[in-house]
Amino acid sequence: MTTAAGPTTAHLPGSLMAAEIAEQPAVFDRILLESPSSVSSLAAQIRRAAPRFVIIAARGTSDHAALYFKYLVEIGLGLPCGLASPSTTTAYGATPNLKDVLWVAVSQSGGSPDLLHSTRAAAKAGALTLAVTNAPNSPLAQAAQLHLDIRAGTERAVAATKTYTATLLSLWLLFDAWRGGKGSDALGLSELAEGLVTSEDVGAVAARFRFVDKIVVTGRGYAYPTAREAALKLMETSYLAAHAFSGADLLHGPLAMVDEDRPVVAVVPHGVAGAAMAPVLERLGERGADLTVVGDPAMAGSNPLIALPKAPEELSPLLEIIPLQRLAHAMAVARHYDPDAPRGLSKMTQTT
Amino acid sequence: MTTAAGPTTAHLPGSLMAAEIAEQPAVFDRILLESPSSVSSLAAQIRRAAPRFVIIAARGTSDHAALYFKYLVEIGLGLPCGLASPSTTTAYGATPNLKDVLWVAVSQSGGSPDLLHSTRAAAKAGALTLAVTNAPNSPLAQAAQLHLDIRAGTERAVAATKTYTATLLSLWLLFDAWRGGKGSDALGLSELAEGLVTSEDVGAVAARFRFVDKIVVTGRGYAYPTAREAALKLMETSYLAAHAFSGADLLHGPLAMVDEDRPVVAVVPHGVAGAAMAPVLERLGERGADLTVVGDPAMAGSNPLIALPKAPEELSPLLEIIPLQRLAHAMAVARHYDPDAPRGLSKMTQTT
Repeated sequence: MTTAAGPTTAHLPGSLMAAEIAEQPAVFDRILLESPSSVSSLAAQIRRAAPRFVIIAARGTSDHAALYFKYLVEIGLGLPCGLASPSTTTAYGATPNLKDVLWVAVSQSGGSPDLLHSTRAAAKAGALTLAVTNAPNSPLAQAAQLHLDIRAGTERAVAATKTYTATLLSLWLLFDAWRGGKGSDALGLSELAEGLVTSEDVGAVAARFRFVDKIVVTGRGYAYPTAREAALKLMETSYLAAHAFSGADLLHGPLAMVDEDRPVVAVVPHGVAGAAMAPVLERLGERGADLTVVGDPAMAGSNPLIALPKAPEELSPLLEIIPLQRLAHAMAVARHYDPDAPRGLSKMTQTT
Repeated sequence: MTTAAGPTTAHLPGSLMAAEIAEQPAVFDRILLESPSSVSSLAAQIRRAAPRFVIIAARGTSDHAALYFKYLVEIGLGLPCGLASPSTTTAYGATPNLKDVLWVAVSQSGGSPDLLHSTRAAAKAGALTLAVTNAPNSPLAQAAQLHLDIRAGTERAVAATKTYTATLLSLWLLFDAWRGGKGSDALGLSELAEGLVTSEDVGAVAARFRFVDKIVVTGRGYAYPTAREAALKLMETSYLAAHAFSGADLLHGPLAMVDEDRPVVAVVPHGVAGAAMAPVLERLGERGADLTVVGDPAMAGSNPLIALPKAPEELSPLLEIIPLQRLAHAMAVARHYDPDAPRGLSKMTQTT
């Protein structure tokens, strides 16, 4: 089928996804140029409402952006934060008391019926509602009291890449304005991202993983959403059995399934999230796991490495995911799959 | 190694896990006999504190019990509820404002250092803290202001079974007392559980799955924690690449990896959670998935079935997991693994 949003007959498999991965530094620049004034007005409105609790509703890739925002809110703002279970509203009709709650719905398309339903219900239940979308005219953006536009531009590949990092950056800017910052930590971000779009260490790892069909991705703290998103990309583009675990949860049970046939990719950035992985790497070493490190070269030992530059820890997830998106893309193309149009998926998923 | 808590030289692989699975109806009876008065006093103390938010901290199997409690709290009590990310406290030293928060830490051993640390921090931050453990003298039970004893008795197999369902039942009793109930919905529970301990349909499914190494388990609403826990059992006892997805999330990306080599087990109980799976089963059918239904025979069509009896929906997760524990056990034994002592694991996992 040839449509504006789908592959054309001359389509080179994965070309859309590759272009959108490469576009991320430019998207960062656009967001940093265009978003600050609207973000600062949103932050002022949220501060006036003085929420005591934040609930985030999202699915799929957006759920990983939600998890990232949860860390920002809990660590940086000192507010408790939970991820919504939309089915409590949509299937069970729950009517919680959401006074003093900021309800954040994250959806790049802004068209997911269950998020729309639960966001409307949240407003009725007393929450201040914020939609975070790539579609200012979408039903979700219209239904929420506040809207944060992620300004990623049209995303054509089914596997979300630039909308993920654009959501992270937009949420970080909102968080930073909320705490009274001016977004200055993000100023060198697109340059660092550019380095990761072109770095040469991804190819060797992809080649080594050519015949892998089960894989584990792990990270802690701010790097845990990266592990989740990387696993989802690997599942949806290469159909791998890719599991993501927080480093701590990995040691509670799933470690048993790690063996010589199942490589482990550990996201070990510079900073607290990376340092907290040290005991996990040690246990994996004892188990004889085949380990690849994405992050701080000093933590890689003699294992294969995809190096990450130093960056402010809160912003590191925007960088960590780029080589992992490239890895997913390279593995899919090597298997003759088309990551722009994974089997069984369409760009917008309708769940109720 | 021969210790009081470990396998002996005459150990038959999986015999501990099998015995503990079979013991669950008796554990239910004990809890229903012994817990009500202490649970009702706990509920009274919680009601007096009138929390406005609930945060639950847990890892591994206990995290699935936490997710179950989240559904009870949101649907049945109308309170917003979140799952804690312990690393925000332990790795990043976050100090959120937890006034009006009930903090619930769930750990069968009560000895996990990160839960102990984050529970102490939660009390300092203003929360009312409740520990849910199988060990009243454990550090966690002592550290929290309130303690709920799950009364499962000593669990010797590394793979948790009876402590999982005992935690669910204890949490349900607390929830029910909190809303003013007397636990009467649970009265027929052990009889229904007994039927599932001995039902004959598990063997045929286990035989059919003998050579499976990748599997997806899915469920929605109250049945989603069951899917998560079943996948963990399959990972830790048979080392399968077992993925769990909520039915809605499965359609956002992971569906792409479902193919003829990767069976799907759908938890489709009687009631809302099962009915909400209808569109998911339909999409799986279109994708040609190899589907096995655990639940309502009317939803199984011509697919292999492990039947569940009708039960009050809130209590259904206590039953759903039993045949799935048996499936994990049977698959592990058929592969000549010992589910009582999975490789690389010990009974208590120390994470910080």
